[in-house]
Amino acid sequence: MREPVTAAAGPGRPRDAEVGRKALRAAVELYAELGWAKFTVDAVVRRAGIGKAAVYRRWPTREKLVADALEWALVLPAIAIDTGNVDDDLRELARALMAHYLGPYGLAGLRLHVEARAYPELFGELAATLRRTRALEARAIVRRAIARGELGEHASPTLILDTLLGGVLNHVLATPEELRPEMTARSARYIEDITAFVLTAAKAIGPP
Amino acid sequence: MREPVTAAAGPGRPRDAEVGRKALRAAVELYAELGWAKFTVDAVVRRAGIGKAAVYRRWPTREKLVADALEWALVLPAIAIDTGNVDDDLRELARALMAHYLGPYGLAGLRLHVEARAYPELFGELAATLRRTRALEARAIVRRAIARGELGEHASPTLILDTLLGGVLNHVLATPEELRPEMTARSARYIEDITAFVLTAAKAIGPP
Repeated sequence: MREPVTAAAGPGRPRDAEVGRKALRAAVELYAELGWAKFTVDAVVRRAGIGKAAVYRRWPTREKLVADALEWALVLPAIAIDTGNVDDDLRELARALMAHYLGPYGLAGLRLHVEARAYPELFGELAATLRRTRALEARAIVRRAIARGELGEHASPTLILDTLLGGVLNHVLATPEELRPEMTARSARYIEDITAFVLTAAKAIGPP
Repeated sequence: MREPVTAAAGPGRPRDAEVGRKALRAAVELYAELGWAKFTVDAVVRRAGIGKAAVYRRWPTREKLVADALEWALVLPAIAIDTGNVDDDLRELARALMAHYLGPYGLAGLRLHVEARAYPELFGELAATLRRTRALEARAIVRRAIARGELGEHASPTLILDTLLGGVLNHVLATPEELRPEMTARSARYIEDITAFVLTAAKAIGPP
């Protein structure tokens, strides 16, 4: 496999960016697995397999590193879903969330919400930003559906999003460890089913 | 306020039981707030305001104490809901879960699922037991509804329970800290609404 162009560009910015990405990726993984209490810059350096000096130069403290890493992995990848119809929008939203939970950073967001209560000065604002970002993009989907007349004006964004997004989360949490490969294999089918389930209630309760 | 009868009974079993309960309660609270990494028997003794010797005699290690405390708070209070109709059963299930999340042990279960991946040898079995217990009692509700003809035979316990239980969880997680009192005040209304929402889909998709 060829090296990505940025990494082959020699010293300077692109190479820095590659080292930075490796550090951020390792930091989110370690945070998701072990949490804040066991999080150290040294452990991130070891897991990422990169130079210690470069990491410490950029992130002198573990607080700065974890904050940047969580923002990079959780807040920045906001997805602007807008397919033009509510069925596809909600399906895509559920699919993206399932992919997130099944991916390497799946536990990081959940842990952030849990740890925001134990360490509010460190994680409180990040958790609040994440909540706000997610809520805004999801609510926009329902608002557009109401504007297009696909859902009635009294359709409840709260109920639609709680059942869809919470449903996906509960599905992942409630699946026993040994059934995880099976759940992953069937996840596309599950996304179809839960989206149809939620849309049935949304359209019946809040008809246009 | 009068002391409870058991605490006034002098030395012997009832008084032991009271000390034990105080220790368990403090242990779950500390685990929920700070997680396993910061969990110590000494901190539990301090928070519970009880004698150190009594606690160490019963729980010589922090592993034993946290395991007993989580089982006591999360696994044992299994609720056998069986009102005779599916609407009331599901409403009561959602209500009990909301009360749990808003109570002092609300974060403990979520943290357990997160930490079961970091410390599988310690929390894996407990998380699995909790999952199994919850799934069995919730699925029994849907099975009885199918047997009584309230739901069709192809009604999906998975979708019904994921959307109802996950919906309640998402509602709690997505609510910003500053809106928590308001959410708590409105939680009875929310339970009515989400139960009706989920039942609408369940009855429309899997009619008897």
